[in-house]
Order: sequence, then structure tokens, then C-alpha cells
Amino acid sequence: MLLRDATVGIVGLGLMGGSLGLALDGKVARRLGADVDEAAATRAVAGGAIDEAMTEAQLAARADLVVLAIPVRRMLERIPVIAEQLRDGAILTDVGSTKSDICAAFDVLPERISAIGGHPMCGREVSGIDAADGTLYVGARWVLVPTQRTDHLADALVGELVQAVGADVIEARREDHDRAVATASHLAYVSAQALVGSLGNADGVTDGLAGHLAATGFAGATRLAGGNVDVWLDILLTNREHVRESIGLFSAQLADFAALLDDEESLRRVLEAGRVANA
Amino acid sequence: MLLRDATVGIVGLGLMGGSLGLALDGKVARRLGADVDEAAATRAVAGGAIDEAMTEAQLAARADLVVLAIPVRRMLERIPVIAEQLRDGAILTDVGSTKSDICAAFDVLPERISAIGGHPMCGREVSGIDAADGTLYVGARWVLVPTQRTDHLADALVGELVQAVGADVIEARREDHDRAVATASHLAYVSAQALVGSLGNADGVTDGLAGHLAATGFAGATRLAGGNVDVWLDILLTNREHVRESIGLFSAQLADFAALLDDEESLRRVLEAGRVANA
Repeated sequence: MLLRDATVGIVGLGLMGGSLGLALDGKVARRLGADVDEAAATRAVAGGAIDEAMTEAQLAARADLVVLAIPVRRMLERIPVIAEQLRDGAILTDVGSTKSDICAAFDVLPERISAIGGHPMCGREVSGIDAADGTLYVGARWVLVPTQRTDHLADALVGELVQAVGADVIEARREDHDRAVATASHLAYVSAQALVGSLGNADGVTDGLAGHLAATGFAGATRLAGGNVDVWLDILLTNREHVRESIGLFSAQLADFAALLDDEESLRRVLEAGRVANA
Repeated sequence: MLLRDATVGIVGLGLMGGSLGLALDGKVARRLGADVDEAAATRAVAGGAIDEAMTEAQLAARADLVVLAIPVRRMLERIPVIAEQLRDGAILTDVGSTKSDICAAFDVLPERISAIGGHPMCGREVSGIDAADGTLYVGARWVLVPTQRTDHLADALVGELVQAVGADVIEARREDHDRAVATASHLAYVSAQALVGSLGNADGVTDGLAGHLAATGFAGATRLAGGNVDVWLDILLTNREHVRESIGLFSAQLADFAALLDDEESLRRVLEAGRVANA
């Protein structure tokens, strides 16, 4: 099956699902959408993100390819339910930010269903259908993670979908993915949150001066802290061990910096290396 | 003396000094500039950031108001030298990011000179005269810190300069300023550098995958790590104790997050509070 002949169902019409719908406009046979928030589903139709809104069960019964775009732990609840409603030969994928638990749920699906894990490496600090943007995926890397239910058809069709929205496929194993994003993504969120907390404390000690003096640099460093809490809670809790390890290594780096404040030449070398690595 | 009648000398024609010169165009009688890099001084004249380039000694002998815009520790070296060359009644200020050491150097200047510490809360991750921008200070907060040599004239003229470039004056004591910026600014830089270091480590463990998966969110969180190392080294080393304290409190916040990964409801509350505080 080619993408242009496929009926694609998107479960969850927030930022990620809505943007996917917009990006697939004209590239698939039909875009179905379901969301527990009926008002969001209505706006998704009105905004052109999907062709038709319906219940999750109706969507599962009609779609050739279903993309799950809901928080990770909600996916884990819905995967077995949706699987019962899917047609023989249907393909299931997701856009969740952690992959071990989701791929384990895909592994045990009935053999009549194909499934491959997915994670597009992009996002915004805004959420909801009203923030959807058809260019969100352009230029992003989209990790595909094989499962026990991944066959050539699933790999090919989902790969075609990724390319159709302007993203680039990277194949990775679930374990490698989760370890890598614990630092490349989840740690950056935790750090932003801890910076916000630190500023709040400093604000108390300085009678409001610290908050008053926080400028654009601070705002940029903490922008991720504005992300959707439900989404992030699910990410952190389904990648707990890697996140904890990553926080530990980050704290060790910070302790190194504190120690280097007494060793100017070494501090200079580390800062120069960081500047170059970040360029 | 009013600003429009003043000859203003800017020592250091990098991002901050060059931007100041551009912002003062048409608002002062004459803009003099000095930089140890003669090519930078020539470009500052060509780009309209100053009216005339000269040596620091020549500038000090002619200016009514001298603004130091060089790294903090270089200021500490130059302040006593420049002071000898200043005319009676001349006013000295600076744009350095830490204030205790600079204000202590201002305190002991000859009584024939007025001096007030300054710190505009803005910047970029680019440096040098070619990055100068006449709108850099618009809307920024500019801290003014009194010293033993601050009189009404210095306070009024420097305050007028701050407003002339579009910034807002905040008065603060040196100690309060340094404590506040240790978190509001310096910690954000250290955190960005430590995130870059963590990604490098994760990259090693994941065979390059972590770096490959770092997306726009990570780039935003680490943007500060691209700042000028000479400038930052001077900032960190002249605010060492507050920065160290701030790193310690930040590490404690991170340890709290790691612990809360086992306490979902508390983690949710903390993340929601951080999201709101950052809005």
C-alpha cells in the first residue's frame, strides 16, 4: 500500500497529532481523527487538520494506518483496546517520546496487526490543536524503532509518512533511543524546571531582585519548562531510570564546574570546549 | 551637565560598547572610542558606533563621562590607570556583569572623580563590534550601584544615559546584585555548559545517537554556552562564592527532581508550579 491510497487515523489531536494532520493534507486518501475532547476534534476539522472526526473505535475500524499522538501512559492503556478494533493488516505507530514501554506493548499485539514505534524529534512549548502547525516536522529527525510486530509493510508505509511530512528517518533500538533522549531531551526539561525553581528561591533571598534581573538569556534557558505537564510527567515516569542516571551525571558536571572556580586554566579549557561543542 | 552636551568615551568596542555607541548616536555631543584591537576601533568608526577612535589615555583626557565595556578583570586593572588620566569632575561608569569588585575599585578613586557602577541586563551569544546593535539596550533593565564616589551628578548623568538608550534604571546594592545575578544569569550559563558536557558524555555512550537526537529544545536550553569565554570567565571568577552557592542550590533542586520520580503527585505539583512561574 502506498501512502496516497491510505486512510490514516490520528488518535489525539493536540500539537503533535494536529500538526501531523495538517502536514498530511493532500498526501493521503483520507485523514480521520479522534480526541477525547470533542471541541478539539471539531476545531481540528474546522482548521483542516483532519477530514473527519469520530470516536477512537470508529477510527480504528476504518483506518489502514493509525498514529497514536496522546501522552505515553495513555497510549499504554489504549493500545490493547484499539488493537481489538483494528482491521486485519492494519498498521499501528505512535509519536511518543519514550519507546521501551510502548514497543513492549506493540510486541504483544495480535499477529494480524503490524506495529512500529516512532518518535519525531520536535515540539513546541505550546500545546493543543490551536497550536498545530503543518511545518512542525519539516527538517526534524523521526526515530523509528522496530518491534516484534514490525514487518516490511509497516516499515515502508510509516517511513513514507515520515518523509511526506518533511522529516528524516533514523532507525534505533528502543533502549538506545531512551538512553539518548534522557540527556538530549528529558534532562534539558528537568534542568529548565530546576533553574526556574532556583530563581524562585533566589527571588526570596533577594527580595524579588533575582526575578527582576532575569533577562532574555534566562528565558531562553528555561523555555522548555513551559511544556505540557501531562506529557512531560508521562515521559519522565516511563524513562525513570535513564532520567535519574542522566540527572546524576549532570550533577557531577555541575560539581566539576564549582570545583574549577578555583582552577582558572582548567575552567577556561572546559568552557572553550563547551562553546565549540555547542556551536 | 546634560547628556546632550557630554563627550562620552567608551573603552572597549565589542558587542556591549559598540551597541552603546550606536544607541547614543545623536544623543551626546561626541562619542570617543578606544579598543586594544585597532581594527575593531576602525570598524567602530566606519560602522557609526563612535565619532572618533583614539588611545585609552587620549580618551580619558577628553571625556566628560567614560563607560568601561571590557571584561571585568581587565576593568579592575585599568580603573586606577584611567583614573589618573581623567579630568577633574569626570564621571566613570561601567557595564560589567559583577559589581562588588568593580565598585570596590571605584570606592578608592581620587575624590576629584565621580563613579557609579552599572550593569545592563541584556546580551547576545555573539560578540565583537560586528555584532553591535543600536537596539540592544531597548527595554532592558540597567542596574546602577552606588559607590563611595557616587554623587548627584554621576547618578543623574548616567541615569540619563540609561534612559537615552531605551533601558530602565534599577538601583541595587552591589552585594544584592551579585547574589541575584549568580542565579538569574551566571547559573543559567553554567547549566548550559554542563548540559553541553552531559550531551557529549551521552554521545559517547550511545555511539553518537544522543547528539543526533538533540533538537531545537536542547539548542535553546544551551544557547548561552556559546557566549564569549573571556567575558564569562571574568564573571564567574569575580562572583565565585555566589556562583558556587547557586550551583549548590541548583544541584539540590535536581536531587529533589530525581527523588520525585518515585512520587508522581508531588512531581506533578512541582512541574505545574515551575510551568506557571516560568510563564
